[in-house]
Amino acid sequence: MAISLGILTISDRASAGVYEDISGPAIIDLLKTYIKNDWQSVYKIIPDDRSGIETALIEMSDRDSCCLIVTTGGTGPAKRDVTPEATEAVCEKMLPGFGELMRSVSLQYVPTAILSRQTAGIRGQSLIVNLPGKPKSIKECLEAVFPAIPYCLDLIGAPYLDCDAEVIQVFRPKKS
Amino acid sequence: MAISLGILTISDRASAGVYEDISGPAIIDLLKTYIKNDWQSVYKIIPDDRSGIETALIEMSDRDSCCLIVTTGGTGPAKRDVTPEATEAVCEKMLPGFGELMRSVSLQYVPTAILSRQTAGIRGQSLIVNLPGKPKSIKECLEAVFPAIPYCLDLIGAPYLDCDAEVIQVFRPKKS
Amino acid sequence: MAISLGILTISDRASAGVYEDISGPAIIDLLKTYIKNDWQSVYKIIPDDRSGIETALIEMSDRDSCCLIVTTGGTGPAKRDVTPEATEAVCEKMLPGFGELMRSVSLQYVPTAILSRQTAGIRGQSLIVNLPGKPKSIKECLEAVFPAIPYCLDLIGAPYLDCDAEVIQVFRPKKS
Repeated sequence: MAISLGILTISDRASAGVYEDISGPAIIDLLKTYIKNDWQSVYKIIPDDRSGIETALIEMSDRDSCCLIVTTGGTGPAKRDVTPEATEAVCEKMLPGFGELMRSVSLQYVPTAILSRQTAGIRGQSLIVNLPGKPKSIKECLEAVFPAIPYCLDLIGAPYLDCDAEVIQVFRPKKS
Repeated sequence: MAISLGILTISDRASAGVYEDISGPAIIDLLKTYIKNDWQSVYKIIPDDRSGIETALIEMSDRDSCCLIVTTGGTGPAKRDVTPEATEAVCEKMLPGFGELMRSVSLQYVPTAILSRQTAGIRGQSLIVNLPGKPKSIKECLEAVFPAIPYCLDLIGAPYLDCDAEVIQVFRPKKS
Repeated sequence: MAISLGILTISDRASAGVYEDISGPAIIDLLKTYIKNDWQSVYKIIPDDRSGIETALIEMSDRDSCCLIVTTGGTGPAKRDVTPEATEAVCEKMLPGFGELMRSVSLQYVPTAILSRQTAGIRGQSLIVNLPGKPKSIKECLEAVFPAIPYCLDLIGAPYLDCDAEVIQVFRPKKS
């Protein structure tokens, strides 16, 4: 059975059709190059509304059984940016190391990386990871944290991700 | 109209007159070299009391319309150090990247940098940033995070800061 | 009077006797090489149960007067990993710099370091520090943060730790 991965674009303007979402498809394209399993995407574009984001995350986790849910957008300091708060509200535990590493990587490119509030957390058997909104930053951030994602999924009882070692070097520690 | 910037020195001893506050004036002097706008400081010295800090932050934000409020002191692990808690209590959203970067920069000088709990957050159209108490650390930390501050203010609808590029390299990403 | 230090191994399997705890003794051995004071260990092995962890931390702090309590285990993303939550629940203030530095150090060895949720905090006159579960990672992490620990204890009114400068370089800033 195919694995489901959630891709959630959070943007008032993209959801209203003011412009075409390029961030969500960019994430799908990246994940296609990383993951060799048979997988399908559950892809949605929604506005920067906290309860709507929470509902979408809960559905992707509980109903659609997405083992990995990647969001893009809504992580900045502006009033409408509420993706991290919505993520934290639906997660049982938070993984601060994801946000720390992504900000640290982005800082190599732009000093405004510290304005990103992106985080990650666990809901049931789903890992939720916030990525920034811009396609260029998405790749930098996803490349940085992805090596830890398959082992994280192992630890929460999610499906085993089989990845292409020529594209991304994932790491699984030997059992102690 | 002149922009208002809040400088809040938090120290039991400085507020009691046991010693003269040099940290607050050091911040004002630094900001004078960075910012070319016409601006005025709203400067207070108060004790390490959580509700008093919250009141001062709220007044500087809501009443005095300070777009940037910089605190100094009260970020350590001692019982009376409650500046981060007071900051979080009055902010609508937190920006963990500020604390991460400031600790990371300070770690290049002293291993005790990890004891600093300094953070930053947004209240309305104000950015609140905790700096450490010592003038030397203040400069290291403010220099590290300031390049992201003008763009942060743009994002929250605060006034446009015009900065001296020969003193500090601020960064504003191009509109996407 | 001898100082008391708490070492708390948190592991379902070690507490059930499925395997022998080697992490707790490894921490005790490391602390013996660092600390020259006369000190005794308060050492317990308990399962990954949140309320049990909270009780053990409270007893080590309030009853046994341990100025430093080091935990090992239970910091990952798995369902039973609840050490950081238990730590936060019993602490009056958190020190995010400890977790940031430990993850940053561990990242030099394994990309899965971002999965560790370890943190540190203050309860009364006790500093509580979460270390990872694996002996190799324990040493990397404890070496990284220990230089700041004696000064942290000074600041919270705990006993003065006298350390062996040939083994570990602790740092105490000059009084300002």
